Amino acid sequence: MSKTYPPSINRRQLLAAAGGVAVVQGASGEQIQVADSTMPTDPTKIPGSPATPVGDRSPFEKASRRVLGGAISTTPLQDLHGSITPASLHFERHHAGIPAIDPQNYELLIHGMVERPMKFSLAELKRFPATTRICFIECSGNLPIRANAKTTPQSLAGLTSQSEWTGVSLATLFREVGIRPQASWFLAEGSDAAVMTRSIPVAKALDDAMLAYAQNGAAVRPAQGYPVRLLLPGWEGNTSVKWLRRMELSDRPFQTREETSKYTDPLKDGIVRQFSFVMDARSIITFPAYPVSLEPGWIEIRGLAWTGRGHITGVDISTDNGNIWQPAALQAPILPKAHTRFRYLWKWDGSPTQILSRALDETGYLQPTRKQLEAARGAPQGPFAYHYNPITGWQIEADGTVLLAPDPG
Amino acid sequence: MSKTYPPSINRRQLLAAAGGVAVVQGASGEQIQVADSTMPTDPTKIPGSPATPVGDRSPFEKASRRVLGGAISTTPLQDLHGSITPASLHFERHHAGIPAIDPQNYELLIHGMVERPMKFSLAELKRFPATTRICFIECSGNLPIRANAKTTPQSLAGLTSQSEWTGVSLATLFREVGIRPQASWFLAEGSDAAVMTRSIPVAKALDDAMLAYAQNGAAVRPAQGYPVRLLLPGWEGNTSVKWLRRMELSDRPFQTREETSKYTDPLKDGIVRQFSFVMDARSIITFPAYPVSLEPGWIEIRGLAWTGRGHITGVDISTDNGNIWQPAALQAPILPKAHTRFRYLWKWDGSPTQILSRALDETGYLQPTRKQLEAARGAPQGPFAYHYNPITGWQIEADGTVLLAPDPG
Repeated sequence: MSKTYPPSINRRQLLAAAGGVAVVQGASGEQIQVADSTMPTDPTKIPGSPATPVGDRSPFEKASRRVLGGAISTTPLQDLHGSITPASLHFERHHAGIPAIDPQNYELLIHGMVERPMKFSLAELKRFPATTRICFIECSGNLPIRANAKTTPQSLAGLTSQSEWTGVSLATLFREVGIRPQASWFLAEGSDAAVMTRSIPVAKALDDAMLAYAQNGAAVRPAQGYPVRLLLPGWEGNTSVKWLRRMELSDRPFQTREETSKYTDPLKDGIVRQFSFVMDARSIITFPAYPVSLEPGWIEIRGLAWTGRGHITGVDISTDNGNIWQPAALQAPILPKAHTRFRYLWKWDGSPTQILSRALDETGYLQPTRKQLEAARGAPQGPFAYHYNPITGWQIEADGTVLLAPDPG
Repeated sequence: MSKTYPPSINRRQLLAAAGGVAVVQGASGEQIQVADSTMPTDPTKIPGSPATPVGDRSPFEKASRRVLGGAISTTPLQDLHGSITPASLHFERHHAGIPAIDPQNYELLIHGMVERPMKFSLAELKRFPATTRICFIECSGNLPIRANAKTTPQSLAGLTSQSEWTGVSLATLFREVGIRPQASWFLAEGSDAAVMTRSIPVAKALDDAMLAYAQNGAAVRPAQGYPVRLLLPGWEGNTSVKWLRRMELSDRPFQTREETSKYTDPLKDGIVRQFSFVMDARSIITFPAYPVSLEPGWIEIRGLAWTGRGHITGVDISTDNGNIWQPAALQAPILPKAHTRFRYLWKWDGSPTQILSRALDETGYLQPTRKQLEAARGAPQGPFAYHYNPITGWQIEADGTVLLAPDPG
C-alpha cells in the first residue's frame, strides 16, 4: 500500500507554495486546510519534494467514490476525463464484502464436464499466453428509477467503470482442461463470503471471456477481484465473478440464487426475463450536469457512451428538449464494448432548455426513451431496475442552474 | 490523498484469511509479516471489508518505482501488464523536485509573437474543447551504458511510461491568442524551482501537442506536472515541460541551458547534435528477464515496443543469439507513439542462449544493434547517452538463470 511511503508533499512546502492555503494531514489521517496568507505563492522559489517509490495524487484533488452502505460505491463520472477509470475509483459492488486473499494460497479449480479436472495457482495462470483489452464493466442496476432533480452523473450512472484488463483467455484454459462436447454452460464461483455464483454459456467463454489478473497495468485491486476475476466484456457486471475460485462445466445452467431470485427482469404481463446478460447501449452527459452552474456562451458538452454489443457508432445530442438531434464527435480509438468519450460544442444563449444524449451501436440499436422502454417492458417495480437504459439529460435553468431533466425524451 | 481513508483490509481479516501469513502495518507505516499458522485459509468463512471512497492495492502487492537520488525514479516494467502505467508508478525526472501547486492559483501565460497575450486559469483551460490520447513519455537518457549482468528491465528501460492523457490541444490555444506568421518556435517554462525551459518548434504545437490536465482519467499527478503539463507525443520527455506556467512565441529557439549544456548528443568527429527531439523505435523484453529463473518448457516472451515516429509495425524475436528472427504478436489496438505490448511463444529446451527483441516502425526504421549505433555516432562518452536505443536482450544460462545479455545483437 502506498501508505507505507512518506507523503510526497510536506507541510512546509505547502505552507510556502500554496498561496495562503495549506492542506496538511492530521494525526488521524484527515485533511485540514490551514490559512496562512503571509506565504509566497511562487513555487519556483522553494525546492520541491523528492521522487518516491509509489506516487500519490495532489492533496487538492478530492474525486471519490460515493459509498452506499458497505456493498456499493460509485465512480465519480463528473470528475473524470478520457475513458480510463483510475483503479482507485472503479465502482464496487460486493455481496459480502471484499475478501482478503493471499495470492500464494490462491487456487482455481476447473472441473465437471472436462477431460482433465485441474487446479491452477496464480503463477500457473500467468504462464499461459496473455491477452489485454480495454472494456467497461457495468452493474445491471445502474439507474435509480426515481432520481430527484439534484442527482449527479455519479448517482445516475456511476456503476460503470473502465479499465485495461490483462489475463488469460478462457478459451485457452478450456482447451487445457479439455471441455467435453456436451458442456454448454459453466458455473463461475467467487471466494467471497457470499460465494457469488453465476451460470455462463460456454459460447461466451470461447468468444471473448478472460480471467483477469491485471487492471490498468498493475494487479487487479481487491475491490475488483484480486487476485483473479472473470471478465465477460459487455455483460452485466455480476457475471464477471470476482475472486474466482471454481469453474464447473455442465450441460445446463445451475439456477443459482443470483439468477433466480435476483438479476432477472420482470416484463409486462407477469413474464420474467432470465439470463439477460448483455448490457444495451447507453450514454450520459457528464458535463454540464448537476451541480454545475453555467454562464451563457460556448460550452463543450461531454460524456460517455457504451454498448455491450460492440462498437458505439454514434452519439446524438439534442440541446432543445429532444426536437433536433446532432451528432457528437467521438474520441478515437473507438473500442468494442468500451466507454467512448463524446464531445459536442454548443453555444448556450441563456434560455432554459434540456440537453440530452442518445447512443447508437453497431447493431443499429438506438438508446430508447423511457416511454419506449416502458412500452416494451412495463414500468419498473422497485427503486432499481436491471437493464434500464433510457435517454437521460439535464435541465438548464435561465440562471444557469443544471438539474436532472425530469422526463427526458 | 487516499491516506485519509481507512485501509480497506484490516488486521483481523488478514490473520483470519491469509493462510498463516498476515501483513500488518506498523506504527511508522512499514509493513510487517506475521506468521500465524493456526488461522483458516478460506476467505468464504469471514465477511469481507466494506466499500471505500478511494481504493488501494492489495497489501501483498509491492511493485514500486526505483528511486535514484531524489530526482529520478523508474517504472517497474517487469511487474506490469498490458500497456497502461498506473499513475503511481509513472517514472519521474525532475530538476529541482516536485513543486506544490494550488490549482486555484494556477495561471498559464502565453505571450511573445501573438496578437493577444493572455493568461488562462485551470478552469479556463478546461472550458476549451478537449482531446484524449494514449501515448508514452520516455526520458531521452533511458539506458545505462555500462549495465552489469544483474540489471532488471526497470533499470534498463524504466524511464518510459504510458498514460491516457486528456487536455486541450495547443493548436486550439494558439488560435485563441493569434500567433503571428513569423512565430516558428516557442519557449515552454515550468514552475518548478529549476524553472525548466525548452524551445519547441511551432510546427509540433500545430501537429499533436497538448496541454494535459488529466492522466489515466483523473488529475495529472504532482510528479507528472500537476495541474498542467505540456505533452509532446513521441518527443524526448524533458520537452513535455511539467507544471507549465509560460509559453513565449518567437522566431528562433531560445538556447536555454537544457538545450545547450544538456540534452544534446555528441556524435563522431566532435560534432554535437542539438534539438534531437524524436524518440527512435525501441523494444525491451520484460519477461523473462533478470532476476527471473526459468524451467525448460513453454514460455511466453513478453515485452514492450514503442516509437516516437508513429506506429510500431513489427517486433522480431530471436531466441538463438540473433541468428534467426521471428515476428512476435502485437496486442491490438496498436496506437501511434504508444507502448505496444508484444508476445512470442517459445519452447526453451534448457540450452544456454540469448533472447533478443528488435522493433520496426511505420517509417521502416529498424532498431539498430549497438555496433550499428556506434558506427553512426561514435561510442557514448559517459554513463548515460541520449537517444541510445540498441537492441538488448537476456542471456539464459543452463540452470535457468536469466541475466542481461552482455553484447546483444
